[in-house]
Amino acid sequence: MEMWFSELHTSNVKLSMRIEEQLCSVESDCQRIDVLVSDEFGKFLALDGEILFSEKDEFIYDEMVTHIPMAVHPDVKNVLIIGGADGGVARELINYKCIERIDVVEPDEMLVEVCRKHFPELTCGLDDDRVNVYIQDALRFLRNKTGDYDLIINDATDPFGYTEGLFTKEFYGSCYKALKSDGIMVYQHGSPFYSEDKDECVKMHRKAYQAFPVSRVYQAHIPTCSSGYWLFGFASKKYHPLDDFRPEEWKKLGIKTRYYTTNLHRGAFMLPGYVEQMLEEEENEKKA
Amino acid sequence: MEMWFSELHTSNVKLSMRIEEQLCSVESDCQRIDVLVSDEFGKFLALDGEILFSEKDEFIYDEMVTHIPMAVHPDVKNVLIIGGADGGVARELINYKCIERIDVVEPDEMLVEVCRKHFPELTCGLDDDRVNVYIQDALRFLRNKTGDYDLIINDATDPFGYTEGLFTKEFYGSCYKALKSDGIMVYQHGSPFYSEDKDECVKMHRKAYQAFPVSRVYQAHIPTCSSGYWLFGFASKKYHPLDDFRPEEWKKLGIKTRYYTTNLHRGAFMLPGYVEQMLEEEENEKKA
Repeated sequence: MEMWFSELHTSNVKLSMRIEEQLCSVESDCQRIDVLVSDEFGKFLALDGEILFSEKDEFIYDEMVTHIPMAVHPDVKNVLIIGGADGGVARELINYKCIERIDVVEPDEMLVEVCRKHFPELTCGLDDDRVNVYIQDALRFLRNKTGDYDLIINDATDPFGYTEGLFTKEFYGSCYKALKSDGIMVYQHGSPFYSEDKDECVKMHRKAYQAFPVSRVYQAHIPTCSSGYWLFGFASKKYHPLDDFRPEEWKKLGIKTRYYTTNLHRGAFMLPGYVEQMLEEEENEKKA
Repeated sequence: MEMWFSELHTSNVKLSMRIEEQLCSVESDCQRIDVLVSDEFGKFLALDGEILFSEKDEFIYDEMVTHIPMAVHPDVKNVLIIGGADGGVARELINYKCIERIDVVEPDEMLVEVCRKHFPELTCGLDDDRVNVYIQDALRFLRNKTGDYDLIINDATDPFGYTEGLFTKEFYGSCYKALKSDGIMVYQHGSPFYSEDKDECVKMHRKAYQAFPVSRVYQAHIPTCSSGYWLFGFASKKYHPLDDFRPEEWKKLGIKTRYYTTNLHRGAFMLPGYVEQMLEEEENEKKA
């Protein structure tokens, strides 16, 4: 038998992978959740047919949203992860002894259960004493938070699905308020290559660029993402991702990584001309 | 009608694009050549079913093999392009007034004809007075060349197809001999992500690392390449791609680019941890 899973990156391009087995397919209140085993990417989880993460390439995403801000902010104690049911980001964060508290806010309880069952090597990150999982809507959770966090990692992926509220201007404002006066927010910035993706990518920049004094974009190569190329946003009240970067201090922590290095940290902010131009056009529009 | 073109990146992963029309399908002495029109990537050319370039993303490849060495070497007069029938690399090179001669060596005459017919906006690069196209086998062409070139750009893509000879140790030796005492060779290094590709990538490094005193690897995000991630080799007799980089001089030339910038030049050499480790293992093996 031949079984292939396909994900449409645009209506005209798709990435397909050979499937060995479907381990799970459930419908939660929020979305359809599938766990599949592929030959090339190992086990992976799809939400409404779109890959959220795979065993083979999750390390790239999880390392890049965690270590970039952690190598910049000198004193992170309280972290909020919005989404992050799979525990991959928490697993990276618990490497840091300085962190006292990690709040994970995920509205979909069934997603957490599916992850715990099928991806224990990731969800082990949620079992650390410092981690608190809240099954709750992130917008509501943030309502009474003011100056609570040093770092917010917005793991929400889909600007159109049930996490749509996490991509509004209001939401960026709530995150700003929930951060301390030197807080950093990292968020998914989308893929800039295909025209369909580009519009979302530009809108994303607009919101963070308007809400935060420091707003920079960085990149990674993630094979299961649209066109294999993904951007992240670094929005910050005080610290600049390169000017305030502390490579020597980070190296002393001895944290093992497979994608992130202090050298790559710098390179991740050196974007292709077409991406720089896209972001600058948006910035100039704001100034005009 | 729905028509899709698929390229297997490994035996278990494929990238597919919706096709509007097939413009050409011919069999040359070397290979099958197809020209197709896709919705997302515009016109593209496939050799034996594998995409060689597309209108939408050729700029990334062509700029990265050209401007990286040209912003390092201070005085390029003679250039050899091996392969490069489509003219994309030549089109980038003719922006440089310092260049006196560009030799293009391509064994497949039919490929040149197909490109001239369907991609005139690329092959215009071949019409410059300084460009000489030789329909010849590159290994034979190189046989009587000694110290002729400042820069060799090896555009050959497939280590298994009819260009197999261009991936041997002997071939790297011939290139070394054909270069002047401060010459640079840039070549395709493959994609490092999938296990199937990784082995080729390591072998590639071995050959250049053994033949040249300076051997560095740099990266670009190219959507139609395997996993969307491509590496290039920078092999050089004298100049280091970062220590001898001349960003200010390059900027003064005023060459318009869409992917390459002097900032990206530096970032392109800052590789992910897993790629660095792969290359270092190979280097240590040589030393041992």
